Amino acid sequence: RLILYRHLTDTLTADCNAVLKALQPIFQEQGMTETVHNWEDHGYLATYVKKNGSFANLRIHPHGLVLVDLQSYNDHMKGREEVDQLLNKVEERMKELFHGNIKRVKRLPAILRGGVIDRYWPTADGRLVEYDIDEVVYDEDSPFQNIKILHSKQFGNILILSGDVNLAESDLAYTQAIMGSGKEDYTGKEVLILGGGDGGILYEIVKLKPKMVTMVEISFDKQLIIQLSSSCKYMRKTCGDVLDNLKGECYQVLIEDCIPVLKRYAKEGRMFDYVINDLTAVPISTSPEEDSTWEFLRLILDLSMKVLKQDGKYFTQGNCINLTDALTLYEEQLSRLYCPVEFSKETVCVPSYMELYP
Amino acid sequence: RLILYRHLTDTLTADCNAVLKALQPIFQEQGMTETVHNWEDHGYLATYVKKNGSFANLRIHPHGLVLVDLQSYNDHMKGREEVDQLLNKVEERMKELFHGNIKRVKRLPAILRGGVIDRYWPTADGRLVEYDIDEVVYDEDSPFQNIKILHSKQFGNILILSGDVNLAESDLAYTQAIMGSGKEDYTGKEVLILGGGDGGILYEIVKLKPKMVTMVEISFDKQLIIQLSSSCKYMRKTCGDVLDNLKGECYQVLIEDCIPVLKRYAKEGRMFDYVINDLTAVPISTSPEEDSTWEFLRLILDLSMKVLKQDGKYFTQGNCINLTDALTLYEEQLSRLYCPVEFSKETVCVPSYMELYP
Repeated sequence: RLILYRHLTDTLTADCNAVLKALQPIFQEQGMTETVHNWEDHGYLATYVKKNGSFANLRIHPHGLVLVDLQSYNDHMKGREEVDQLLNKVEERMKELFHGNIKRVKRLPAILRGGVIDRYWPTADGRLVEYDIDEVVYDEDSPFQNIKILHSKQFGNILILSGDVNLAESDLAYTQAIMGSGKEDYTGKEVLILGGGDGGILYEIVKLKPKMVTMVEISFDKQLIIQLSSSCKYMRKTCGDVLDNLKGECYQVLIEDCIPVLKRYAKEGRMFDYVINDLTAVPISTSPEEDSTWEFLRLILDLSMKVLKQDGKYFTQGNCINLTDALTLYEEQLSRLYCPVEFSKETVCVPSYMELYP
Repeated sequence: RLILYRHLTDTLTADCNAVLKALQPIFQEQGMTETVHNWEDHGYLATYVKKNGSFANLRIHPHGLVLVDLQSYNDHMKGREEVDQLLNKVEERMKELFHGNIKRVKRLPAILRGGVIDRYWPTADGRLVEYDIDEVVYDEDSPFQNIKILHSKQFGNILILSGDVNLAESDLAYTQAIMGSGKEDYTGKEVLILGGGDGGILYEIVKLKPKMVTMVEISFDKQLIIQLSSSCKYMRKTCGDVLDNLKGECYQVLIEDCIPVLKRYAKEGRMFDYVINDLTAVPISTSPEEDSTWEFLRLILDLSMKVLKQDGKYFTQGNCINLTDALTLYEEQLSRLYCPVEFSKETVCVPSYMELYP
């Protein structure tokens, strides 16, 4: 439940035994049972077990790194105080032992595991991030993915698809960016949205009096429409009531794989002023064409260009700005399209993503 | 070095012994030495020690939570692969044992400890956040605080004062917000900046041709000016060259505690169009008036109002939006000022803060 650590980098190699001797009493006072493992060349591991089911690991490295990890089952503040007192003692004792000559001391916040609420949703580039989740609003499996809606105190409800943070109520910035950052006039325009299951783009564009918006979202099915509209109940700030019905005055939602739809439109010569690709980063289509994610992306791009008017525009999301290879690869795809395209990119801060997204 | 875990929530209470028996071989195959602790009523803790100095904790709780924590010293990808293989085995074995009836399985990214680079800088509301730090650019103690400049791939250089993320090169949004979000005309105006050590506000306002900007920053001293200007070398995007000199055509930087300065100005009747309070969230002044942080804040507010023209404006930062008590308390201070004030607030997304700031 709780992890934290101490660094001690002494100019000399630390005397592991002296450290162990100095810290042992602190844990023994707690009535903890000790087990010590001694490596000839890797220092000590002391494990302290308490009657209430909690335990501590004290790892002493010969080069001077000392790590203390505590794990306890129940989360009562009292436990926290005890832990802080214990760690304060460890800190004092170490400072005495090395006459304050300790290079770095650091405690990490507790990591909560096994609770109803999972607060840890790593970023796209794999960094550990704890969200201020205080409620599981919705959690269901669709045939395509797991759909979670978790409530964050600061971001509002967050839509998490198969473990990836997809959109939060705080993230109008994302929707605005993928719509062209307010620089586009959608009035009377024909718009095609690929994906966009959260309804944010549809909701924002419909406000702008377009001629017709067609949204093609595969990840709906009968059961999912119910799920989605119920989940949209929880994302009102994002999608309003636009997904309560699959048809509106100036919009329709097709529950289909976008690839056959794009091919049909291309065949029919149906053209759009705007194509907005909001498919989830990793495509969830099951169409045979998708022999690889990148093939799929290029296919989508090619087909989109076919249904795009001469002066039409194509908007899509990139990915975490740190995934430079992926982004470069993506831009390479653009040069491999059947028709030449101009493109520009913009980076935005999407509050709930905790990373910058081009 | 690496932490991750498994959840297994069986409808029945898990048979701890069965789980232990099922998982033991996986660790034994690794040539790890096992120590098992058995609580009558709290399940098992099995510790596995490897010759190379790494070890694993397997914690089996009777209500069905199983946690696996691995800690190893060296960070070579090979180690990572080994870990993943081991965890895959644990996962398979568990699924066999419970016929796939496992409620949740989750791995967390590795937590890196004891390295030269510390990637973990918790948010103001105490959540664990890993930054994409790839370089320690600058790290010095001033008489008032520790000044770190760490480079983040996505945020650029980040200024960290005494462990608190203060500002990153990506955070123009913060500077713009505390300047009134572009709605203010600073041309020919008298501006007073309290704090603002990173130089961002000064740099942005000076561009707007004010009459005179006075910045009062206590946390400079002779030695620190060198530090700061050298640190500003690393924050060029934020402060340009504005702090290379303490005097410019339309600005001056006073290296003083702002309280006596404010009192002096109030006495002299020196008035300003704008007072921007950018003092670090926890005041670092040592003036006797500061018998408490809140007293100090109110004192600053009172004195600021005294030097503010009739139609003048006072801008300041709030704090993490989750610290609602603090924010409410702050607003209470506003009602306790010697003169009535109107106030409004705005919340912005400061990229590097990873939380919303009013």
